[in-house]
Amino acid sequence: MRTTLISIVLGVALALAACQPAPKQEAAPAPPSQAEIAAAINQVRATYETAVNAGDAAAVAALFTNDAISMPPSEPVLMGKEAIQSNLQSQLDQFKYEITITQDEAVGAGDWAYGRGTYALKATPKAGGKAVDITGKYLNIMQHQPDGSWKIARHIWNSDSPPPAAMMKKK
Amino acid sequence: MRTTLISIVLGVALALAACQPAPKQEAAPAPPSQAEIAAAINQVRATYETAVNAGDAAAVAALFTNDAISMPPSEPVLMGKEAIQSNLQSQLDQFKYEITITQDEAVGAGDWAYGRGTYALKATPKAGGKAVDITGKYLNIMQHQPDGSWKIARHIWNSDSPPPAAMMKKK
Repeated sequence: MRTTLISIVLGVALALAACQPAPKQEAAPAPPSQAEIAAAINQVRATYETAVNAGDAAAVAALFTNDAISMPPSEPVLMGKEAIQSNLQSQLDQFKYEITITQDEAVGAGDWAYGRGTYALKATPKAGGKAVDITGKYLNIMQHQPDGSWKIARHIWNSDSPPPAAMMKKK
Repeated sequence: MRTTLISIVLGVALALAACQPAPKQEAAPAPPSQAEIAAAINQVRATYETAVNAGDAAAVAALFTNDAISMPPSEPVLMGKEAIQSNLQSQLDQFKYEITITQDEAVGAGDWAYGRGTYALKATPKAGGKAVDITGKYLNIMQHQPDGSWKIARHIWNSDSPPPAAMMKKK
């Protein structure tokens, strides 16, 4: 009887050892908090602002995904990073831009987020003439990249008042 | 020896029975596919179009969340569903709108999605005068509601060309 009991205990112990759950894989890093996402997207905003004020269209374009879509006011849709850079370059050829961009909110959901805010732009014609001041608002769809950065995938904005005649595109 | 072996087998059987994983909880319903999300958001687009063409500002406003933010071109930001309805009502008091809205894409991530597309609007002044035709593009942030519907939480659009003088707000 004693042997039997010991044997049962041994059997239980062996079986329990065999049916332990597999050791846990190393835990995936916790997803970033909304505050961390907003801070990361605000950093893109800051880089965008600096690049526009430096007149550097390539540095602005580098903040967009390759297949980004930009929807500028008073112009057709721009498809792709190259079209976005080329469009901005043609503006920077004509105007010195001084822009301040303010992020009002940024909300993440998985690999996507949106960023929304306002801007104030002073555009000074390089050929001479009076500078114009414009304020407006924007909405960006941001896409999380494999390297951990966020890039602009969709971009749209408009001004709070009709665009001054001086800003109308030279045909 | 035989008793011992039987006892071990019995112990193993008892222990294995005890360490079965708990029965699975009933599975949560599968999240909607991207195609289902796009179809649901396209339904909001269709309802929006119908409501604008019916001149029904309240029915349009019902498609927005209570705290929605709308960013119309040439005007300041509108905060909240009531401001959005009131702004649209003032346009519908002045113009008969005939709008066609086309959804180019809608992408969901959890309880959020974006919808992007274009519109063609014919605005006929109710006081008489020539109708104006405008084309443009929009970007919406959609938020999934507890009842399963999607509502517009953030809304921005602009036209492909400068707004005609006839559309400028009467002060």
